[in-house]
Amino acid sequence: MRALLDAGSSERIVYLGDTARVPYGTRSAETVIRYARGCARLLTERGVKALVVACNTVSAVALDMLQAELDIPVIGVVEPGAQAAVEAAVAAAQNRPPEEANDPLPRIGVLGTQGTIASGAYPRAVGRLSTRFEVIGRPAPLLVPLVEEGWLDGEVPRLAVRRYVEPLLREGAGVIVLGCTHYPLLKPVVEQVAEEIAGRPVPVVDSARATAKVVTEMLAQGRIPSRTGGGGETHADRLELLVTDLPGGFQKVAELFLGEHTPAACQVDLVSG
Amino acid sequence: MRALLDAGSSERIVYLGDTARVPYGTRSAETVIRYARGCARLLTERGVKALVVACNTVSAVALDMLQAELDIPVIGVVEPGAQAAVEAAVAAAQNRPPEEANDPLPRIGVLGTQGTIASGAYPRAVGRLSTRFEVIGRPAPLLVPLVEEGWLDGEVPRLAVRRYVEPLLREGAGVIVLGCTHYPLLKPVVEQVAEEIAGRPVPVVDSARATAKVVTEMLAQGRIPSRTGGGGETHADRLELLVTDLPGGFQKVAELFLGEHTPAACQVDLVSG
Repeated sequence: MRALLDAGSSERIVYLGDTARVPYGTRSAETVIRYARGCARLLTERGVKALVVACNTVSAVALDMLQAELDIPVIGVVEPGAQAAVEAAVAAAQNRPPEEANDPLPRIGVLGTQGTIASGAYPRAVGRLSTRFEVIGRPAPLLVPLVEEGWLDGEVPRLAVRRYVEPLLREGAGVIVLGCTHYPLLKPVVEQVAEEIAGRPVPVVDSARATAKVVTEMLAQGRIPSRTGGGGETHADRLELLVTDLPGGFQKVAELFLGEHTPAACQVDLVSG
Repeated sequence: MRALLDAGSSERIVYLGDTARVPYGTRSAETVIRYARGCARLLTERGVKALVVACNTVSAVALDMLQAELDIPVIGVVEPGAQAAVEAAVAAAQNRPPEEANDPLPRIGVLGTQGTIASGAYPRAVGRLSTRFEVIGRPAPLLVPLVEEGWLDGEVPRLAVRRYVEPLLREGAGVIVLGCTHYPLLKPVVEQVAEEIAGRPVPVVDSARATAKVVTEMLAQGRIPSRTGGGGETHADRLELLVTDLPGGFQKVAELFLGEHTPAACQVDLVSG
């Protein structure tokens, strides 16, 4: 939602956070698919004209199902993230010093939840774009709790990130994908640790901006019908925040991302819906 | 379940792990109560004669509701844990060197989930047993993910534990309660870190053994009808393992705790149940 606003969208946006059942990243594909179906039903019942699956785990395991079952455009975050990663890998290969020109091409390293890595969604998405870059994935289960705890700098995040990033770099990763929507808050730590280990800056890509760009293009091309008007509205006028647990803790985080005029989040019931 | 078996129980035990919705510790009391009600219904429909709430968060926020709504004995883990903590605090007070005899009494420090600490269940339970010992609580949200990641020694668990334990000791804790069923796997780290900070061993108590003792006593006293026979059965004969997500990952952990003859876990559906 933040990335869509940054991209200049004036669309009305309904945001649904399944706070009573997160995190999804440790659950089986079967359960994630069941949860995703319930979330999608609630949003389509509200008449949305397009669905952005702003979660890597759901994008990785349930996107095909959602695209098959829904008659509106469904955009995931894995393909835009893979696109950004391939672009970064091409640039990294081109910028190599002459003495490394015959080395193997950089690999694309992906940090994600257990569900995202186990699904193989990133290797598949990269493979559809280019056969030149090998993808190596690594589940990083401690990073979501670190972000939720607000523990974004200091020794513990550095050591945890090092434990996940070091094997990727040792296996030849020249680009690191933050394959979970929580991880961008740890991007400075990932960049710093990766540079320390590699001895040079390592490009670190996340999918939020790339996904917002895809949505903006689809609106411009008419593949999603564009809204007219909407200038001068505040966030509270055109954003709707829905959560499945009590809104208390969520509201504070939402205000960090959305600033003033953040609408009040409302609790909805998915289970009996 | 492990503690009940260690206590010599020959009862048949049905274990339900809500693996599709854990962790509960970060959710609102309202949501935990709703989930606990569903779990209890599934177990009572299977005809259990007593219910052990082997989760601190559910014990802290939903025990009164479960005891009011069910017509079988319901045993939580908070009261036995509080009992063990008071006993340890009494012993710690008695064993003080003479020159500290007039110092304030040791406080009881509790590490728990956000839900458990916010509920105030430990201060209430300790207050019912003794008014001499003040309870100070501290949410330790990173410890469950550390245990689930199997990250039980080394620098990261030590630093995380230090961050949670140091303020408790600084505020006068002379006993530390592991107020979450995940934490006992980190008990050696907690003991080591606490001793380093305090300059002397600090008693660390957990509630599993204390709870199993309460259940064993209730069986011996006939407050829970005791089963006759059952000798020579394997675990597979008398234990039943139910989970709400696919059993794969759970099964490995169960075998670590229960050893050979661990029954195969079965998936059950709470949502539509």
